[in-house]
Amino acid sequence: MKTMLSNGVLISILLGPLCLAQTSQPSEVNDWKPSTLNQPGQQYPQVNSQRLARFRIVAPQAQSVSVGLGGRGGTPLTKGEDGVWTGTTAGPLDEGFHYYHLTVDGGTFNDPGTLNFYGSTRWESGIEIPAHDQDFYALKDVPHGRVQQILFPSKSTNMSRRAFVYTPPDYDKDQTQRYPVLYLQHGWGEDETAWSTQGHANLIMDNLIAEGKTKPFIIVMTYGMTNDAKIGSINSFNIAPFETVLVNELIPYIDANFRTLSDQPHRAMAGLSMGGMETKTITLKHLDVFSHIGLLSGGSISSDDVKNTPGFAKKVKLVFVSYGSRELGGGPGGGRGGFGGDPKANAEALRQAGINSVFYVSPNTAHEFLSWRRSLHELAPLLFKD
Amino acid sequence: MKTMLSNGVLISILLGPLCLAQTSQPSEVNDWKPSTLNQPGQQYPQVNSQRLARFRIVAPQAQSVSVGLGGRGGTPLTKGEDGVWTGTTAGPLDEGFHYYHLTVDGGTFNDPGTLNFYGSTRWESGIEIPAHDQDFYALKDVPHGRVQQILFPSKSTNMSRRAFVYTPPDYDKDQTQRYPVLYLQHGWGEDETAWSTQGHANLIMDNLIAEGKTKPFIIVMTYGMTNDAKIGSINSFNIAPFETVLVNELIPYIDANFRTLSDQPHRAMAGLSMGGMETKTITLKHLDVFSHIGLLSGGSISSDDVKNTPGFAKKVKLVFVSYGSRELGGGPGGGRGGFGGDPKANAEALRQAGINSVFYVSPNTAHEFLSWRRSLHELAPLLFKD
Repeated sequence: MKTMLSNGVLISILLGPLCLAQTSQPSEVNDWKPSTLNQPGQQYPQVNSQRLARFRIVAPQAQSVSVGLGGRGGTPLTKGEDGVWTGTTAGPLDEGFHYYHLTVDGGTFNDPGTLNFYGSTRWESGIEIPAHDQDFYALKDVPHGRVQQILFPSKSTNMSRRAFVYTPPDYDKDQTQRYPVLYLQHGWGEDETAWSTQGHANLIMDNLIAEGKTKPFIIVMTYGMTNDAKIGSINSFNIAPFETVLVNELIPYIDANFRTLSDQPHRAMAGLSMGGMETKTITLKHLDVFSHIGLLSGGSISSDDVKNTPGFAKKVKLVFVSYGSRELGGGPGGGRGGFGGDPKANAEALRQAGINSVFYVSPNTAHEFLSWRRSLHELAPLLFKD
Repeated sequence: MKTMLSNGVLISILLGPLCLAQTSQPSEVNDWKPSTLNQPGQQYPQVNSQRLARFRIVAPQAQSVSVGLGGRGGTPLTKGEDGVWTGTTAGPLDEGFHYYHLTVDGGTFNDPGTLNFYGSTRWESGIEIPAHDQDFYALKDVPHGRVQQILFPSKSTNMSRRAFVYTPPDYDKDQTQRYPVLYLQHGWGEDETAWSTQGHANLIMDNLIAEGKTKPFIIVMTYGMTNDAKIGSINSFNIAPFETVLVNELIPYIDANFRTLSDQPHRAMAGLSMGGMETKTITLKHLDVFSHIGLLSGGSISSDDVKNTPGFAKKVKLVFVSYGSRELGGGPGGGRGGFGGDPKANAEALRQAGINSVFYVSPNTAHEFLSWRRSLHELAPLLFKD
């Protein structure tokens, strides 16, 4: 520092960046790695240990390129002399999975570097910020279950419908064993691929089972916005067609074609966001079908709900409600946590009433998939306990 | 016509388009429909009964947008006053599935209207031109098999590897029945998703089985470019790592975890393009493992190959070789059909030598997936005949 003090110019050069580092502009740590969701061989986008993301898009004649991630305005990219657009998010992103897209000269496109994931009723780019607890959904050297695509007949919609079915690792070993079933729903604008791709539901289960932390069970994931014609508009969403498909068609098909325990005590339903709303509506109406209920960032169940649903306390073995911490407002009624009442207070009221009620908050996550991966990880060990 | 003749201006207006219709510019038939591979709710791209395709891309500030389909130069789009780019292919496309992408201001992007398919070592846009014979791979109201994702341990590559397994409709009904297995490989730049998405292998099998035209069998599809580090370069491709994964790891895993007939007479291998080359190399080296061989747009087997492979005539129950008609040149050695010699002549020579040798040509298709859908449809009924 002594030599610097003798040179005013040098001081100002050095103190400039130092000041910025103490305020809004942290100095970047140069440990960039390609996002794990990049297409094979693609180097960009990259993430570093500060949870910054940087992007690289080739579009030499473009006038403007920006990335819809990194705060309200997104991240504008700047064009280099080589015609390549680059830029880094102004601040750290939350841990976990994020959907995003590019805006190129006013048009919406995906980043050609990344894999695509179905969200917002379209296939979007995805980026993964490594989470400190990512081990629970990592692909490890443990016995793996399978994810199967099935096409089941649906008379009510006059078509074969698709579902994905997770069967636990030993499913094909012992042909006499039967398993409980969790029906697990995606959110608005997503589809039946979400839970086993961006959700890693299969890996979460494989790892929990390998550690002996959960009973093995089957998971069934199908498309929850059955009134396809209205795609893109949640306001026009009508649950009746999906309720029919799920309760009258899919469940009987699964029970006929998989080795399930097909009674109410061994059937659960859970869903994220809109899937949570579906779960609440359908389970409360069909308590002879479902015994375990999971609402992930998708409302909660109040004492009034219980009061208005005959047999609830006797028939329901678990009410699991979860949110990402960033979803919860300053108090009751605030933030997304608000619809249907304050979820924590509701959970506590149910517990006071003697119902097995669990409330979980995912730390430092928003209405995004890391909240839901963690929620499934918390929920699974609570299901189907005798 | 009489009134037109009395008005020179009217005649020239009408004859203009008529002349064009007789030469290069056919008049468009206005029966446009969204491509069946569009993302949910997306209206563009569209195709009509003349096998033309038209595109619509929103990019108001872009300088140039073109589509890499429709002849050598692709299809340039033009910007309307609303900032929307539109254009129609200059001529008809072949029936079936085509990969493509957009060039927007010099950058490569996918069409936000379509689903993506893994080809050319990247996820590309896809469009489907309805084929006159598309019924054989249509989703129908017949019993459906399942496509399962499995993660199998691979010591040689020190990771869990992914494969997709098709099991026929009755697989879970009769737990005593065992099935033959076809190992089915994708082409260069594609991956293990290709055959069950753009290939419709599962639907082709479901339909054939429903019609009683093929024995039910299992199909296993895994990634064939095992030396991942060299992705994108076929010249550096080394088959040894894949051969180890397939023969020493995947096959034993499948035989241990599925109800297979695990002897040589009940095991086949087939592949398209590079997957055909892999099939030839691996089967000829392992005739105690495979009895049925299918090369789809991927070379052929010559009399010399037979001579150089001890036991060939006795061990091999079928050699199936196919090409799209547009792949075949004017004669021996011409076109793609050429590598490894003229495939038709080779097939005939094998037949003369008493080998069960079948040569199939898909009409009016090139090195694209309709050739391979049709080839699988021809191949399946020939497999595992006693």
